[in-house]
Amino acid sequence: MNSKSMEIKRHSLSHVMMQALERLYGAVPGVGPAIENGFYHDFDVERQITEEDLLKIEEEMKKIIKEDLSVDKKIMPIDEAIKFLKDKKYIYTAELAEDLKEEGETEVSFYQQGDFINMCKGPHIKSTGEINSASFKLTKIAGAYWKSDEKNKMIQRIYGIAFETKDKLERYLKTQEEAEKRDHRKLGKDLELFLIDPSVGMGLPLWHPKGALLWRIIEDFWHREHLKNGYELVRSPHIGSRKLWETSGHWGFYSESMYPPIEIGSSLNAIQTGEKSDAKEEYLIKPMNCPFHTILYKSRPRSYRDLPVRWAEAGTVYRYEKSGELSGLTRVRGFTQDDAHIICAKSQVKKELAKVIDFIEFMLKTFGFNEYKIYLSLRDPANSKKYAGNSEGWDFTQKVLEEVAQEKKLDYVKEEGEAAFYGPKIDFKIKDVLGREWQCSTLQFDFNLPERFDMVFTNEKGKKERPYMLHRALFGSFERFIGVLIEHYAGAFPLWLSPIQIKIISVGEKHAEHCQKLADEFKQHEIRVEVDNSNETVGKKIRKAKTEKVPYVLVIGDKEMGTDRLRVNIRGEKDIAEMGKNEFMEKMVEEIKKKK
Amino acid sequence: MNSKSMEIKRHSLSHVMMQALERLYGAVPGVGPAIENGFYHDFDVERQITEEDLLKIEEEMKKIIKEDLSVDKKIMPIDEAIKFLKDKKYIYTAELAEDLKEEGETEVSFYQQGDFINMCKGPHIKSTGEINSASFKLTKIAGAYWKSDEKNKMIQRIYGIAFETKDKLERYLKTQEEAEKRDHRKLGKDLELFLIDPSVGMGLPLWHPKGALLWRIIEDFWHREHLKNGYELVRSPHIGSRKLWETSGHWGFYSESMYPPIEIGSSLNAIQTGEKSDAKEEYLIKPMNCPFHTILYKSRPRSYRDLPVRWAEAGTVYRYEKSGELSGLTRVRGFTQDDAHIICAKSQVKKELAKVIDFIEFMLKTFGFNEYKIYLSLRDPANSKKYAGNSEGWDFTQKVLEEVAQEKKLDYVKEEGEAAFYGPKIDFKIKDVLGREWQCSTLQFDFNLPERFDMVFTNEKGKKERPYMLHRALFGSFERFIGVLIEHYAGAFPLWLSPIQIKIISVGEKHAEHCQKLADEFKQHEIRVEVDNSNETVGKKIRKAKTEKVPYVLVIGDKEMGTDRLRVNIRGEKDIAEMGKNEFMEKMVEEIKKKK
Repeated sequence: MNSKSMEIKRHSLSHVMMQALERLYGAVPGVGPAIENGFYHDFDVERQITEEDLLKIEEEMKKIIKEDLSVDKKIMPIDEAIKFLKDKKYIYTAELAEDLKEEGETEVSFYQQGDFINMCKGPHIKSTGEINSASFKLTKIAGAYWKSDEKNKMIQRIYGIAFETKDKLERYLKTQEEAEKRDHRKLGKDLELFLIDPSVGMGLPLWHPKGALLWRIIEDFWHREHLKNGYELVRSPHIGSRKLWETSGHWGFYSESMYPPIEIGSSLNAIQTGEKSDAKEEYLIKPMNCPFHTILYKSRPRSYRDLPVRWAEAGTVYRYEKSGELSGLTRVRGFTQDDAHIICAKSQVKKELAKVIDFIEFMLKTFGFNEYKIYLSLRDPANSKKYAGNSEGWDFTQKVLEEVAQEKKLDYVKEEGEAAFYGPKIDFKIKDVLGREWQCSTLQFDFNLPERFDMVFTNEKGKKERPYMLHRALFGSFERFIGVLIEHYAGAFPLWLSPIQIKIISVGEKHAEHCQKLADEFKQHEIRVEVDNSNETVGKKIRKAKTEKVPYVLVIGDKEMGTDRLRVNIRGEKDIAEMGKNEFMEKMVEEIKKKK
Repeated sequence: MNSKSMEIKRHSLSHVMMQALERLYGAVPGVGPAIENGFYHDFDVERQITEEDLLKIEEEMKKIIKEDLSVDKKIMPIDEAIKFLKDKKYIYTAELAEDLKEEGETEVSFYQQGDFINMCKGPHIKSTGEINSASFKLTKIAGAYWKSDEKNKMIQRIYGIAFETKDKLERYLKTQEEAEKRDHRKLGKDLELFLIDPSVGMGLPLWHPKGALLWRIIEDFWHREHLKNGYELVRSPHIGSRKLWETSGHWGFYSESMYPPIEIGSSLNAIQTGEKSDAKEEYLIKPMNCPFHTILYKSRPRSYRDLPVRWAEAGTVYRYEKSGELSGLTRVRGFTQDDAHIICAKSQVKKELAKVIDFIEFMLKTFGFNEYKIYLSLRDPANSKKYAGNSEGWDFTQKVLEEVAQEKKLDYVKEEGEAAFYGPKIDFKIKDVLGREWQCSTLQFDFNLPERFDMVFTNEKGKKERPYMLHRALFGSFERFIGVLIEHYAGAFPLWLSPIQIKIISVGEKHAEHCQKLADEFKQHEIRVEVDNSNETVGKKIRKAKTEKVPYVLVIGDKEMGTDRLRVNIRGEKDIAEMGKNEFMEKMVEEIKKKK
């Protein structure tokens, strides 16, 4: 079944639901469209519909489907329609009909199935019997302002989902359930990883100790691998003069995503600081790190011997996303790009590209993402004027990008017209354990900044030459990547990433000291241990460690005091393993090294 | 000689200089005070005084000193003084006399030595012969607006320095010369550590690869030591809602140091984002990390079992310092506090204080600062109303602070009335190799934030209790601390901190591969190596490594190819050491471990 016919079926289902609501409660209809995976219908009725009512409504819907009512379209002149709706006391639809009249409509369509008839654009199925009674479900009740306007009356809304088959519905429900359990916003709170607080601002996460430690572990690894891969670190501030952003062009084509300028010397501040009011300065909080890296590049003359330059920075940038688009760590207003810029000569481009792609694949695999979709975004050949740089540069980089993708045997999708205006790019969307795609790694050419900042190097012939510039991020951002990691692992991170790797639990007070000693021994091997010597029962302490998703839990009682044997609770396993301390230590060190 | 009598002598020296300027060039005097380490005098004369003239002026001053002219004070009625000065064409002093008349003065004093007489408040020495001719020096010529007002005429100024003895003068000059060589702004550029660029903004440093690596080495160490000392890491964003800063009180008593708010929804941005204009939001870039940490603390109920909380964050904060106060890395507008907050019960205060002081001393000594001055800042007992918190809290914390300082045998200076309004504190000013003091470590109680954010914990009795809150920084800020480090070591960092620890230099092309192999071996031991296989002469390559202040330089030629013996150029030593590779490797590892 194609998606269009499913959309029609979902729309018709919303009518069936409305018909049931009218039959059961005399509800008056609002609007009722098909949406992604399902439908909803607004309606007005005095009774507050509850979760319990949903089953009853579903039953009535199944009855209507079984009745196999024919769905008939009728055309009515607009004035007749308005009168008809008003007579029926369908005040909401009547209002819509009046709106249509004002817009110049002369006639409108109605759809009728049995005792239910309402104005509707359609299209609809031919008969209610076409619907599979087992492949839909009502999911949620919500309040909704009529016409989404807070000034209007709040009426009710029921959401439903619907699929081609019962099987698909069940798979969807299962995935939803699994996704809810893995929701990083919920786990982030339960595991005390991060906090988003309205008193600080939406989209601006704060990190609890365990989250900040996880971040540091990832950043340490990221940093070490960058040095191994021939990158150098740089650092830049979080604000920069507005002029810098004018030169880069961000303040212009990008300003709708930027926080507005901080203005100094214009008003209040001038009075407070006592600085002269004509010394007006404007700063912008950075939405990108790139302009700073170009300033570093230009701080002294560069020769071909200095290239390639590979500069990485885990720099926190700020973009003003609309509040409706914010979501946990995956859509934020402040995020830390794991940014790098490669500045090189034309002859170095291909090798650098290949190195970056190897690095991306290494990084994703290390974190457990073995599946990803790759998108190669090229310029629109029919509209070449809207791009920065020249055709030669575009042709060259697009060709090399594709060559490298082929040599690396990447399974990529080519998308013409999807390139940024400043250059072609390759994006990696990783698939998490539920098969959901997340945009993470990216590799982009930039023909814009080298021109705007007039970046050059002296080539072998002593002539000035324009270098090629590549932006790239492996994670995309630390925030988003950690968000995806939480969902991918449902918070049960592999050992090397777990903020707490071992929890040691004392049975009684007399075992507390031994627990501490054991912990110190593990710490010598740089293993992250937490001791729970609290006054709770062993059972409660083990349960707590399990909710915290600690990979290994050791319980220390009388039996363990006199020996080197350990009782090890392994995360996700029912049986308790018994092993020698050294054996366990080796197992840990090996597992951490393997990063599995 | 006490400092007061030296100040008088310096003031008199400015008169002697003015007398010489009048004798030599007929210059008309402006003002001429004593300043730190010396004096200056403003004057007006058509001729532009040059560096070469200074010697001649010094000679004339020495003549005046040799003449041993008696310095006599005369009192004159104000009108007579004005007329006298006008007749002498001392237009600047005449203007000052008129100002004094307007302020209600009826008489003023003059000082005369030989042919030179001018209005002056004094006091002065009795006779020019009191000055030691060998203990002063003229140092600098500058332009100066009369009365420091740009609207007035620019006249000339000569600066001089003067000390009790020739010896002290010479020591001062030597220190100045040494300080210039160590100037971190110069070394930061020469060693490519950091960059301050007007196109980014003053006081906003960018870090070149070597500087960023140095930073990372320090931060890694800082981080590891914090975990060892029972701290946890947290992270917070760089901006926060204005309301947060109103609650904390920073937006109010601290706003003159803050960047003005970023306003969203008011103007341009509202149009660009399409968000409703009534959804006005204001954000402030953080001047402190503290309010974020209090929000983390308050994110769930805390019990006495959770205390002490020790949360550290290397958080970059922004404060709008006046441009005239900015200086390299030591006075900036964006800086990264090595901040931590300790939140604890009263019974834990003393132990926590002791731990922090141990930590500060460990940190400073590790970085080679063995001398520091300690200031204990207490409240002004006569003005107790201007402080946050209650007297009981102040008395308790002041008492404990002093107890701990005594038990730790700290050599501290007690300063009443120097406490912040929010709590008493201890500051550590470190002394660098030239004996200059730098404010770095600090430990401060805060009675303000716990009240403003209503921070509480549940005590053993199940009752809500207000915790004690401590701010502390070990470095103060990474930027300032690195700036001081650069000056302290004149850029020749100890091995463990050196961004490049070994430079390997090839004699000829055929040695290049061997150099690379050797470098890879060192890298296995986590030693930071750079290979110089460039086409330059060995001599030039060694000189380059020396300017880069690399601790060890290895030269690889024919002789070294077939053997494990190494020729090692050790920084600061003339002779070349010869040793086996393993011996050298062990020496390196040992030295890095020792952090000397």
